[in-house]
Amino acid sequence: MVRYELEYPKQPYSTVKRYDSLASYSLSTIHTIIATSPLVNVSFNPPNSPFPTILPMIGALGSYARPSADITDVQDLYLHGYVSSRIMNLSRTPDQPDGLPVCISATHLDGLVLTLTPNSHNYNYRSATLFGHATLVTDRDEKLFAMRRITDGVVPGRWEGSRVPPNAGEMASTSVLRVKIAAGSAKVRAGGPTDDKGDMSDEALKDRVWTGVVPVYQTLGTPLAGEYNRVEVPGYIAEYVRDSNVGAQEQAVEAAKATVVPKKVVDE
Amino acid sequence: MVRYELEYPKQPYSTVKRYDSLASYSLSTIHTIIATSPLVNVSFNPPNSPFPTILPMIGALGSYARPSADITDVQDLYLHGYVSSRIMNLSRTPDQPDGLPVCISATHLDGLVLTLTPNSHNYNYRSATLFGHATLVTDRDEKLFAMRRITDGVVPGRWEGSRVPPNAGEMASTSVLRVKIAAGSAKVRAGGPTDDKGDMSDEALKDRVWTGVVPVYQTLGTPLAGEYNRVEVPGYIAEYVRDSNVGAQEQAVEAAKATVVPKKVVDE
Repeated sequence: MVRYELEYPKQPYSTVKRYDSLASYSLSTIHTIIATSPLVNVSFNPPNSPFPTILPMIGALGSYARPSADITDVQDLYLHGYVSSRIMNLSRTPDQPDGLPVCISATHLDGLVLTLTPNSHNYNYRSATLFGHATLVTDRDEKLFAMRRITDGVVPGRWEGSRVPPNAGEMASTSVLRVKIAAGSAKVRAGGPTDDKGDMSDEALKDRVWTGVVPVYQTLGTPLAGEYNRVEVPGYIAEYVRDSNVGAQEQAVEAAKATVVPKKVVDE
Repeated sequence: MVRYELEYPKQPYSTVKRYDSLASYSLSTIHTIIATSPLVNVSFNPPNSPFPTILPMIGALGSYARPSADITDVQDLYLHGYVSSRIMNLSRTPDQPDGLPVCISATHLDGLVLTLTPNSHNYNYRSATLFGHATLVTDRDEKLFAMRRITDGVVPGRWEGSRVPPNAGEMASTSVLRVKIAAGSAKVRAGGPTDDKGDMSDEALKDRVWTGVVPVYQTLGTPLAGEYNRVEVPGYIAEYVRDSNVGAQEQAVEAAKATVVPKKVVDE
């Protein structure tokens, strides 16, 4: 059985030009980077501002029409926020029938790549960008679907582990945006240092400068009980902390030890 | 002696409305968040694109006119990249004499704040946003000043610890942008869980749901030597790894234990 890997269409605004050998348009690659990031950066253009703006928000992928859709499938990105916040107001403005044009990005830093000379220094990273239009979710069941995805994205199992469903006041004060994704791309760098010929043939330089990778990863610390807590740390939280830490460290170390993909530099 | 703390002007596009008690316009607060972030997110509007875009880049603050300026003073933000990348080309377009309008943001996630109900869940975080115009640095000495700041921002001391200065080819292939900052803001949340009255008076709920903070921090792993490395890990790298790890963990735990600033919700 042939299994096709879905890709986002390469649009002029979404095509990676510089080091395009590091680029990917695979839904699976892009979605995994977004789904494993505790925050996404959301950029949009507020009216009457000379500048675009960036908001850090919590995002969750999901397909309400086909809840079984996984990371390799077409999905929407859900964002939540206060009902009358600027981004929510802009997304319900009727003069943009398709919704608010947004760019969403997430980057995982995996390592500091230290080479013989500053110009060749690099990061190991996994970066994803999505482009799409944001509209308000009005259907109550879809809103609950998205809220659950967002909560379980912070700590898997937290939705069932806390008081749900949201009450009427909570439903009214929280808005959910659905971003219909038009295109996206990822860029992933892994591997050790690489230097230019000139520096590599400089024996005195190689005798003097340390080259290698400092792995970088996110750590979840020991859960600290709040003032009114009465119970032990539940298994689903302890397990998430443990799994997340092992996975993050392994990923950074594996990235450091990976074979460097040859750079095919194409100017943008 | 009275010491005045400098603040960025509150512009309509830079004023925090939601939870404005968490907002700060202090140069010191904003610059510290940016300066301690290994990556910044840079948003701009490419021509002929329906969407703004976001690039993860390495940024460094500095004042070339007054190199002794510290984090509390007026500074520029420097970004570097390949000479013919899209953002560089846009920043030298003569039809934008002030430069390319950009938004720059950085966010540190300090903790997952788990409350009785999903609606009250929160993050501890430090987030900063800058707005300004990017122009290309043409002066060779200012470019070297910025390149040094950027390299030492990755690992302090790395500039002197590697082969410098850049050669003619490196200087020609790398461009540096100077962002003149027009405004900025920060938003900082610290503290433990807070829940609404209704949930707080539900004894059965408090007997069932764990509430507290999972601290989150960035860890630098053991430096891994590259294939052509010949030397021991130098002191300045080992020290940076150690100090960075101690500081990051402490900050996340302190944030978890901090007193919650009362929310003054003002709708935007």
